[in-house]
Amino acid sequence: MAGTDFSQRIDLLPTPAVILVEPQLGENIGTAARAMANFGLWDLRLVKPRDGWPNEKAVAAASRADHVIERVRVFDRLEDAVADLSLVYATTARSRDMQKEVIGPDEAARRMAAHIGGGKGAGLLFGREKWGLLNDEVALADIIVTLPVEPAFASLNIAQAVLILAYEWRLQSGRGQLPFDSGLAEAAPRSELVGLFEHLEGVLDQTGFFTTPDKRPSMVNNLRTALTRGNFTSQEIRTLRGVISSIDRRHERPNPNRMKKAED
Amino acid sequence: MAGTDFSQRIDLLPTPAVILVEPQLGENIGTAARAMANFGLWDLRLVKPRDGWPNEKAVAAASRADHVIERVRVFDRLEDAVADLSLVYATTARSRDMQKEVIGPDEAARRMAAHIGGGKGAGLLFGREKWGLLNDEVALADIIVTLPVEPAFASLNIAQAVLILAYEWRLQSGRGQLPFDSGLAEAAPRSELVGLFEHLEGVLDQTGFFTTPDKRPSMVNNLRTALTRGNFTSQEIRTLRGVISSIDRRHERPNPNRMKKAED
Repeated sequence: MAGTDFSQRIDLLPTPAVILVEPQLGENIGTAARAMANFGLWDLRLVKPRDGWPNEKAVAAASRADHVIERVRVFDRLEDAVADLSLVYATTARSRDMQKEVIGPDEAARRMAAHIGGGKGAGLLFGREKWGLLNDEVALADIIVTLPVEPAFASLNIAQAVLILAYEWRLQSGRGQLPFDSGLAEAAPRSELVGLFEHLEGVLDQTGFFTTPDKRPSMVNNLRTALTRGNFTSQEIRTLRGVISSIDRRHERPNPNRMKKAED
Repeated sequence: MAGTDFSQRIDLLPTPAVILVEPQLGENIGTAARAMANFGLWDLRLVKPRDGWPNEKAVAAASRADHVIERVRVFDRLEDAVADLSLVYATTARSRDMQKEVIGPDEAARRMAAHIGGGKGAGLLFGREKWGLLNDEVALADIIVTLPVEPAFASLNIAQAVLILAYEWRLQSGRGQLPFDSGLAEAAPRSELVGLFEHLEGVLDQTGFFTTPDKRPSMVNNLRTALTRGNFTSQEIRTLRGVISSIDRRHERPNPNRMKKAED
């Protein structure tokens, strides 16, 4: 899905921090940064990334999410990475035997939006590729967030888990408007549609389409019903009338293909 | 996010088909298959995949989404790939100058759920990595679906676009329940909480915590307010009372650390 408009400025609005705990692969840090950027997040924090920081593979995988990559902060301890936050949610695909509430990404995003809207800091923890967050890391969080996945196939890549949370953040924080509109032209005034009907029906009267006069009214109704559903614009009605005329006049001029066929 | 339960059977319920048009990289086919599997989709169709099919890189990237990979169907023409469908949505990040309605993933999923719930087939088109769908491919679709992305950073990887649509499908088709519950134990009966309060306050009366008798009532109220918010379980209240007793009895027995310090 190409479509990025690089002429547009990126505003760094208040958003949740994304905290990756001991990420192993630079690619995953980069794709997580890209997923964040897609939905307007930019505060990425790493706790003990295995391959250090900066990481070239992360930069490559971020696909120009430079405004995220440039602001990455690295911490030795999770406690320090969340020090400035007053709402911390831990993402996990596994049930933990802990006295913690479990909520989905939509509810998590709603609560974070209310918290951040009140001028306070919130963050989301994501665990290691292989085994997620440790229980003592989850214990530092207020609440557990999990995704409504297929239980028989629950393993998400980190960037994909980040993407879903970032998407819901955008929806629930009131920025869910689409980047472009339908821009549908208005349907033509009904008089033009009736003009199309009468043009078509007049031609069909000539061609013998209406097999018997008593069947004509219901056949006309069916045609009109089908053609009304399209909500044609004035331009489309002009095109369709041109189509009808073109077919109607076919016998008035020689058709090279037909003549060739006749010769075969 | 580990957590897949391979002991669980995967049901192939009616879901939208995902149609990738001329995908270039096998990895992207595989990660799309994985994203589908995460949210219960399984009908993956490829139109002229650049590197043919089967594709080893796709299988590797699918992370055991075998039930999707095994059912992949390959077509030479998009027209054939959508032949059995009666609702076809085209995903794109770019505005097209076309008389087509544009909707978001949530609305798309709601409409597909209604359609598929009525026993009919629906599908989602995704374009090439580099330049998406061609206009004549979009023209074959009923409607355009786009994501509420940051306009300044709108480019999503195919698998990530598939993931968002698959996630919304799951929510909107009524299968959005989380794979595990909070499983929160009940908060203790209030009598146990009051027991904790009185235990603590009794100890604090001994330690001189309440500096003056006239301040005691408001200090007690503040403590009770803070401790009530935790919704402690019976087990947690027993633990906390143990904590209080342990601190309270500290001077009754020798503390190895303290004694060592005193010797230093």
